[in-house]
Amino acid sequence: MAALARKITKKTGQKRPRAIAAERLSLTLSGNNGRALFTQIREHVRDLIARGTLLPGMRLPPVRALARQLGVNQITVAKAYRELAESNLIEGRRGGGSFVRGSANQLVVDSPADTTARPLLAERLFELARAPGVIAFSSNYPAVDDATIADFRDCISFAATEKLDACFHYDPPLGRPELRRQIQIYLKPQGIDTDADNVIVTSGAQQAIDLSVRALVPPGAPVIVEQPAYYGAINALRGVRARILEVPLESDGMDLEILKNHLIRDRARFIYTNPTFQNPTGITMSEEKRRALLSLAREFDSVILEDDHSPELRFSGKAVPAIRALADENDPVLYARGFGKVFLPGSRLGYLVVPDALRRKLLMAKAHTDLHSNSFMQEAVACYLAKHTYPKLLERLREKYGRCQRLLYNGLVVGMPAGTTVSHPEGGLSLWLTLPEGADVSELYFRAVRRGVAFVSGEVFYASASNSRSLRISFGLNQSDELHEGVERLCSVVKDLLNRRNTRTPAMM
Amino acid sequence: MAALARKITKKTGQKRPRAIAAERLSLTLSGNNGRALFTQIREHVRDLIARGTLLPGMRLPPVRALARQLGVNQITVAKAYRELAESNLIEGRRGGGSFVRGSANQLVVDSPADTTARPLLAERLFELARAPGVIAFSSNYPAVDDATIADFRDCISFAATEKLDACFHYDPPLGRPELRRQIQIYLKPQGIDTDADNVIVTSGAQQAIDLSVRALVPPGAPVIVEQPAYYGAINALRGVRARILEVPLESDGMDLEILKNHLIRDRARFIYTNPTFQNPTGITMSEEKRRALLSLAREFDSVILEDDHSPELRFSGKAVPAIRALADENDPVLYARGFGKVFLPGSRLGYLVVPDALRRKLLMAKAHTDLHSNSFMQEAVACYLAKHTYPKLLERLREKYGRCQRLLYNGLVVGMPAGTTVSHPEGGLSLWLTLPEGADVSELYFRAVRRGVAFVSGEVFYASASNSRSLRISFGLNQSDELHEGVERLCSVVKDLLNRRNTRTPAMM
Repeated sequence: MAALARKITKKTGQKRPRAIAAERLSLTLSGNNGRALFTQIREHVRDLIARGTLLPGMRLPPVRALARQLGVNQITVAKAYRELAESNLIEGRRGGGSFVRGSANQLVVDSPADTTARPLLAERLFELARAPGVIAFSSNYPAVDDATIADFRDCISFAATEKLDACFHYDPPLGRPELRRQIQIYLKPQGIDTDADNVIVTSGAQQAIDLSVRALVPPGAPVIVEQPAYYGAINALRGVRARILEVPLESDGMDLEILKNHLIRDRARFIYTNPTFQNPTGITMSEEKRRALLSLAREFDSVILEDDHSPELRFSGKAVPAIRALADENDPVLYARGFGKVFLPGSRLGYLVVPDALRRKLLMAKAHTDLHSNSFMQEAVACYLAKHTYPKLLERLREKYGRCQRLLYNGLVVGMPAGTTVSHPEGGLSLWLTLPEGADVSELYFRAVRRGVAFVSGEVFYASASNSRSLRISFGLNQSDELHEGVERLCSVVKDLLNRRNTRTPAMM
Repeated sequence: MAALARKITKKTGQKRPRAIAAERLSLTLSGNNGRALFTQIREHVRDLIARGTLLPGMRLPPVRALARQLGVNQITVAKAYRELAESNLIEGRRGGGSFVRGSANQLVVDSPADTTARPLLAERLFELARAPGVIAFSSNYPAVDDATIADFRDCISFAATEKLDACFHYDPPLGRPELRRQIQIYLKPQGIDTDADNVIVTSGAQQAIDLSVRALVPPGAPVIVEQPAYYGAINALRGVRARILEVPLESDGMDLEILKNHLIRDRARFIYTNPTFQNPTGITMSEEKRRALLSLAREFDSVILEDDHSPELRFSGKAVPAIRALADENDPVLYARGFGKVFLPGSRLGYLVVPDALRRKLLMAKAHTDLHSNSFMQEAVACYLAKHTYPKLLERLREKYGRCQRLLYNGLVVGMPAGTTVSHPEGGLSLWLTLPEGADVSELYFRAVRRGVAFVSGEVFYASASNSRSLRISFGLNQSDELHEGVERLCSVVKDLLNRRNTRTPAMM
């Protein structure tokens, strides 16, 4: 197997981290506008939050640093911060520092399932992607080209002419027969030979995961996931208050010794895995491990939920069969996949392939959740699959994104400081970066956005509290001329973070 | 207020019920085809189940009765039944009798939230609606006329031309701005004055209910609902294992004394209500009670989830403002509504109007469930609302369904036996029938389907185990010439049930 990640070792002698410095606010005070200095500071910060320059979770400069920068008394800055905290715009955190809280437009999650406040990632990503001038490495799905839009427009037109009359009814939860048949045909060459009646149409892969969890994981039950894992699955598991057991990833997939321990000692009976181009690490589980995992699931009577988001987007190496393809028809393997991560983002359609024994529970969960997915869109997507233009699209996507990945990977390897690890997956639209020990990714995030580049912080991919030094760099929606500039900005901000960390004194707030 | 239900009192002296007789199977045995008699019986029953003639929950004839009918030994029939039970096709029940279980195509629910097997209503309804020759009084949503289909086709064409390029992206969970703006405009004349940012687009009203429950009801928490209540809400509540507290309905809505007791004694902090044309009873809560309910919710810091499925379909009486319209902006009232129950069934789009304080939790639940609803369909529905042809459609619907309701109501009042109560709601697409004491609706259901008429059994609208004598008669999709025939069949089968019940000896199995 090819080297999947590369640790940059060109320099050595990294100093031990001492403290985290905070960013400067761009802020000018006026002595002659009749408003108190602390009011001006308070209003200015409020404004930066309202405009989205300061985002939830960002750290403000320490009182002392800002006072020095502005040439005012520390008491003045402290008073402004106190009032901002009283209006719930910022908050102090254990360990020191003041951080931006969620505002009306910038949501902070208050999970029904746990009380830890976490950023609502989806909202944060959209804020970032929209901010002018920011190169957002946050989209893990492909841009759709004009030919595909034209194809799909034809399909919509076909469905509007031929199928619309039949779409003004409530459908069974299973989904439209024509779409299920097309999915069956689509999966067959990939070794997944399923009856169309075992395909349940869902509103995207996220719903496929959420339904599986709701139907099969009792509240509080132990569940095995990879560490790190797709945050959408972690969130679905939190929704049922599952006890999430994280199994570290090796270069060829989960550490099966640790996994087996969880099966035995914790009696976990549900395993969520994303074996190909794992989100976020890009790791692909070897066929050997897939077979071993399947054997363990059989031995311990456990369900495997296989999230297979985009096996089509392979740039190098040999395809590995899905676990579903290695399993027998009646093995308890649920297979979740969406159309959004490959050719139809935004369609919010996906599917679950389920064994007979679990079919009823899943259908019931689907009925209780939203009865069935949009009928008209199902017909349009069925038509798109039937047209069979997607093989050419997939070729174009592989060519384009393979090139993007190379460009990004090479740029990062050259530009990142020593001690950084950069993943090199065989496919998918993300790279996984791990910074040298002591680096603080929340702090980096704050600085990076101000420097005009965004990514996804590694911590959202951990179920347990994490001091992750990792970040996901996704390149689905970037223009190719952005890639070079984005890498440059990111490398420079990382270097800057590590350098300052080593030269400045601890912040005092 | 007009009389909302009428108890039929033309006859008296109903005898006390003694036992429930089972239906005859249409079955002919052949003595000379070389197959054992019990095999023939077994195969024939299996066949009837596979074809959907025998549906899940239906009761088979007692062994003795079938043996007598076929002129065979009781042991022969018992052997056939035993083998059918062994292959999980039928089951014995406490209290006697053999009943059809779910088959691969006819699902029986095995709820993750409770262990009682319940029929998956959605599937059962579709089976019924499809069975040839059956007049199905089961659709609580309107038929869409050609003019509306043509209008909507134009909107799809518009969205395909103008909006499709922007639909190949992941959206924020809140929903498309244009649709939320149109919903805001739609609601304003109904007294609901909301900011478009407080409108969350959902995948139908079912999802609006399900999201509210998931976001705001902790597992096992007490929740107040009407008795009876919409089964979709009951199912969503079961999904979080809520303790469902049922409050009986009076002619003007829930009994608020009982409700208040639940707020005090059980500390319920979530109230689900469907105040206009309540599903299934058709009852409309008076404005006075709505105000009182709102006061109670404020006093006890409880959330009201108002399910307002189709206030547009009013045939008589004066419109009553929604609770949301009576509430202040910040009152904890969630307002759920879909497009499916009025003009766009099958679109699987609906919305929740939420107060600021609950907005984040609901958005998070939406993101974790399916990220966002289908973008393209949102644009098409926004276009449809903007066209503003719906006021004319609503006029047509009111005229048509008002006539249907009169026809059905009059037919039932004339044709049903004494002791039956027939509701007479001021709007909506259902009537609610309660049969005289002792009538068994499961038994009636079985007979009715064999006689070519179907309805929805009352028991699905109860959270607690119920011996409901009620049934919902919904007339959304019936041709007008079916109504007369359907009523005739139903009345005759009810009379037959009550008569036989009083004349035959108890069945012995």
